[in-house]
Amino acid sequence: MKFGVIGTGMVGQAIGGKLVRLGHQVLMGARQAGNAKATAWAAAAGPAVGQGTFADAASFGEIVVNATAGAASLEALAAAGAANLAGKVLIDIANPIDPASGRPPTLRVCNTDSLGEQIQHAFRDARVVKTLNTINDGIMVEPSLLPGGHTVFVCGNDPDAKAQVVELLQSFGWPATDILDLGDITAARGTEMYLALWLRLWGATGTGNLNVKVVTAT
Amino acid sequence: MKFGVIGTGMVGQAIGGKLVRLGHQVLMGARQAGNAKATAWAAAAGPAVGQGTFADAASFGEIVVNATAGAASLEALAAAGAANLAGKVLIDIANPIDPASGRPPTLRVCNTDSLGEQIQHAFRDARVVKTLNTINDGIMVEPSLLPGGHTVFVCGNDPDAKAQVVELLQSFGWPATDILDLGDITAARGTEMYLALWLRLWGATGTGNLNVKVVTAT
Repeated sequence: MKFGVIGTGMVGQAIGGKLVRLGHQVLMGARQAGNAKATAWAAAAGPAVGQGTFADAASFGEIVVNATAGAASLEALAAAGAANLAGKVLIDIANPIDPASGRPPTLRVCNTDSLGEQIQHAFRDARVVKTLNTINDGIMVEPSLLPGGHTVFVCGNDPDAKAQVVELLQSFGWPATDILDLGDITAARGTEMYLALWLRLWGATGTGNLNVKVVTAT
Repeated sequence: MKFGVIGTGMVGQAIGGKLVRLGHQVLMGARQAGNAKATAWAAAAGPAVGQGTFADAASFGEIVVNATAGAASLEALAAAGAANLAGKVLIDIANPIDPASGRPPTLRVCNTDSLGEQIQHAFRDARVVKTLNTINDGIMVEPSLLPGGHTVFVCGNDPDAKAQVVELLQSFGWPATDILDLGDITAARGTEMYLALWLRLWGATGTGNLNVKVVTAT
């Protein structure tokens, strides 16, 4: 399949690289075509990848991945173009960290709203699925790096879009039993607000190579 | 030991009951002495327990447990009295759910502050330890109800107070390896904001008998 990856950072490169290894075609989009990171990454990643603008990536992809910093996501997706996103699965991996916040970082939106909801609201014809924002870039695409089972969350308003994302996550190596559907896009409040705990878990355990496993009574 | 439990709800009764079974003395405090729930519970729980006002409970306890609803915690602790809390370990289990919020519930404080911090700030001489707020009342005091290991968080500014709480949690049945110290009381932002995810986990799994296990690379 063809994927457009919006964003050239570690998450975009991790997702893009995994997609290429799985045999997909990827176009990585940046604010401007010829972005140094995107160009270097595309050259290293081989002939199945290209680079261009946010709009090029959104236009190219049958599925589009928002891998920008959360504070820049709405602007980047606006540049990508609502028409280029219409009808498509839009996988949102971003966390709305306020870049002006100190330590610990705070969120720009939370509690009564979320970035996932803001994106769905701004791009009504895209089928937004929030996932993977609670997991670092290495584990996202190689869940077996952590021992035993651990959980990845998905949420969104469109059941078919979620089903496509669940299938994609399984191709990344996530067992079906470890993929938990939290419901509609308002659940993004939960997975985004969890970032505050996630950062503390990193501090307490000394590694960002961490995740949580949801455990219930049997 | 002597424990004062501030609050007569399910959490207060679960914690109070466990403490009695472990051989401690408990005084359950309510807004007014003679509270029906506290009186009935104390009568059923046996001679090691009593009931009284918030101030009676705080005065009685060598360790005090805040098991009130989060929106009422600061007022209840003010009634308990700063002098009665001074120097004592104050275990805060509350979540700052806004009772005026609909579904999903929202928090009264989050992101840049937390209830745990507000309590520590308001009662400077108490040694606040936040714990157990992310786990329902049954699992709190009987962690083996869930299969395998799963994690309970503690945070607070006073290392000795945290050590006492860790010891207490172990007496509740929490293995030392499943008790994770997240640092100072500002980590309460993380464990309180996690409530938004926890409620979604409940919805998705169909049970509140749930917890998460933190998994790291070995």
